[in-house]
Amino acid sequence: MFENEQRTELGTLGEFGLIQHIASHFKPKRSDTVAGIGDDAAVIQSENRLVLLCTDHMLEGVHFDLSFHPLKHLGYKAVVSCVSDICAMNGKPGQILVNLGTSNRFSLEAIEELYAGIQLACERYGVDLVGGDTSASQRGLMINVTCYGSAKTETITYRKGAKPNDLLVVTGDVGGAYMGLQILEREKKVFLEHPEMQPDLERFDYIVGRQLKPEARVDVIAQLEELKIVPTSMIDVSDGIASELHQLGAHGKVGFNVYENKLPIDPQTVDIALEFGLNPSIAALNGGEDYELLFTVDQGHFDLIKNLPDMTIIGHATEEIGKYNLITATGNSFEIKAQGWEHFKHLSE
Amino acid sequence: MFENEQRTELGTLGEFGLIQHIASHFKPKRSDTVAGIGDDAAVIQSENRLVLLCTDHMLEGVHFDLSFHPLKHLGYKAVVSCVSDICAMNGKPGQILVNLGTSNRFSLEAIEELYAGIQLACERYGVDLVGGDTSASQRGLMINVTCYGSAKTETITYRKGAKPNDLLVVTGDVGGAYMGLQILEREKKVFLEHPEMQPDLERFDYIVGRQLKPEARVDVIAQLEELKIVPTSMIDVSDGIASELHQLGAHGKVGFNVYENKLPIDPQTVDIALEFGLNPSIAALNGGEDYELLFTVDQGHFDLIKNLPDMTIIGHATEEIGKYNLITATGNSFEIKAQGWEHFKHLSE
Repeated sequence: MFENEQRTELGTLGEFGLIQHIASHFKPKRSDTVAGIGDDAAVIQSENRLVLLCTDHMLEGVHFDLSFHPLKHLGYKAVVSCVSDICAMNGKPGQILVNLGTSNRFSLEAIEELYAGIQLACERYGVDLVGGDTSASQRGLMINVTCYGSAKTETITYRKGAKPNDLLVVTGDVGGAYMGLQILEREKKVFLEHPEMQPDLERFDYIVGRQLKPEARVDVIAQLEELKIVPTSMIDVSDGIASELHQLGAHGKVGFNVYENKLPIDPQTVDIALEFGLNPSIAALNGGEDYELLFTVDQGHFDLIKNLPDMTIIGHATEEIGKYNLITATGNSFEIKAQGWEHFKHLSE
Repeated sequence: MFENEQRTELGTLGEFGLIQHIASHFKPKRSDTVAGIGDDAAVIQSENRLVLLCTDHMLEGVHFDLSFHPLKHLGYKAVVSCVSDICAMNGKPGQILVNLGTSNRFSLEAIEELYAGIQLACERYGVDLVGGDTSASQRGLMINVTCYGSAKTETITYRKGAKPNDLLVVTGDVGGAYMGLQILEREKKVFLEHPEMQPDLERFDYIVGRQLKPEARVDVIAQLEELKIVPTSMIDVSDGIASELHQLGAHGKVGFNVYENKLPIDPQTVDIALEFGLNPSIAALNGGEDYELLFTVDQGHFDLIKNLPDMTIIGHATEEIGKYNLITATGNSFEIKAQGWEHFKHLSE
C-alpha cells in the first residue's frame, strides 16, 4: 500500500475523507471483530456480549480555547463526548481511560481541576476511570478519552439500518452549543479589546451551558429500552444534524426529508442566531457538539414517540438514496449539505 | 476534591507521582472493574473472560524526533508499545484504535506512511484496527493507540504477586534501544553541524533497530503458555529495568537482588556504551523502550527457564521490602534507583 512521491494536502480530503481513506486499507480480519472503523464505536464479540470501544481526543486550539473553556468543564465534556458515542450504539458505558499531554504551563492544581471534571462525569454516568497515561507535551493541552461499553446483540444500533419511511427522530434541542460558542468567542474578542469590560453571560446561560457542559443521553437509551423501542439506525450529534444525516443516509442507503418547522430549537438559540444574522435552522442543522441522539424508528412506533417530551420527529427516510431535503413551512425544498467541522482547512503550523 | 489556590509544578511530582495522585481519587466502583489504574492494562470482567484495555500516546518532540524516527517506524512502534502492555498482563492483543492529531505540515502521503507502519504491526501481531479519530493539531504530530485484549482468569499476571525467593527473569537483551537513541541523537547533531556528512549507521544497526523498530514479546507469552509457566508478577520494560523493578517490588511488597554479570546486554550495546563513557550496566538498568518482559516465577521453574535461549534469570525477590540491590561480580552491592523517563522536568512551553 501507500507508495508514491506526491504531496496531497490533508485539507483536500477533510477529516471524513481521511478516515475513509484509512479505513479502506484496514479491513477487519479477526472473527471477533464485529464492526471496525466507520460507526460511533467499534464492536467486538466477547462470548455472548458485544463490547463497544470508542476513543476521542480534544486538542487545545483546535477543539477548545482555554480562555473560555474552564478546565473542569473540559474534563467533563471530554468524557461526555466519548460516552455519547457509546449511547449512539444503543449501548451502556462502563469504563474509561484518559491520556493527558500537558506542557509545564499547567500546574498540578490545573490538572486537578481537569480531573475533577472527569470525576464528576464518572459519577454522573456511573463509569470507572481505569487507566491512561500522562506525559509532557511541547505545547498545549491534549486530552484523549477511550470508553469501553457493552450492548446486547438484539438491540445494538448501527449507523446503517434505516429503511424508507422510517421516522427520523432527534432528542432534546439542537444548535444551542454552536450559538453558545459564538457568544463565547464574541465575548472573548470584546474582552481582549476592552479588558475593563466584564462579560455578562447570564442572558446566554442556556446556550453557553450547552457548549461548556453538554450531557450524553444515557437517559434516552434507558427510555428506549423501557419502551422496547429499538431504533433502526442511530448516531450522536457531534458534527451537526446535517452531517449526521448524511452518515445515516450513506450507511442505510436511503435519503431523508426533514421538516424545517419541526426542528427543535431553544428560544435562546433562536434569539442569538437572529442577533448574529444567522437563520436559526442553519444553526440547528450545522451546529455541532449538542451530543443529542439522531435516530430512525419504524413508523409503527409513531404513537409511542410522538408524546415523549424530549424526542421530536423531524422527518422521515426516503427511497431517494443520497437526497437530503429540508422542507420549509411553505413547501419549498432545499438540499441539506453536510458541513460539520472541517478542522484541516483552518490550521497551519 | 481538589480545592486550593496553590501552584505546584508538575515536575515536582514526575509522571509516576502524578498518576498515583490521580489514581488516589479514582477508586473503581463498578463490580465488573477487576483492576483499574496502576498496572500495565486495566482489567474488566466480561462474562467468563477478562478484558484487557490499555492506551498509550506518543507526542512529537517528547517521545519522538521526526528527524530520525521515520513515520512508518513510528506507526509500528506506537502499536508495539501498546501491544507490549497487553503482553505484560500475560494476555493476547485483539483490536486497536488509533487517534491521530496532525498539523498541516504533514501531507496525506506522510500520514499514509505512518498508517503503513500501523498496518505492518497489525499484520505482525494479528490485531485489527477498528476505530479512532483524526483531527488537526496546532503544532506537531500526536499518536494515541488503545489496545483491547483478553486474558484468562487462571493465567492473568499483574505487577503484584512476586514472593520472596521468586526468580527474576528478563527476556531478550536490554539497554540497546537507549544506546540506539544516543547514536541517533549524536548523528543528528553531526548532520546539523556538517550537512555534507552522511551518517553511517551500519555499525550500529542492531541498537538503532532496537530504538526504531522494537517488537512486543507475544512469542514469549506463547512460550510461557506452552511450558505451562504462569509468572507470579510481570511488567514490560518501557521505562528501564530499574524503574520496572521498583514497580514489581512496590506492588508485590518485596525487594530484589540483581546480579550485574547476569544482565543480558548485546555486545553492540556494550561497545557503544563504552564509546559514550557509560557503564553498560547503567544503560541496561536505566535505558527504556526495549519492550522486553520482566517477570518473576516460582523457583520450581528454574530447570525449565534456565535453558531457554531468550530468557535470562538475573536475580531473585527478597523479603527486604523496597530494597533493590545490584550485586557486582566481586560481591559489592549498590542500590538500584528508579530513574526512567521523567518527561516533565525537561520541557517548557
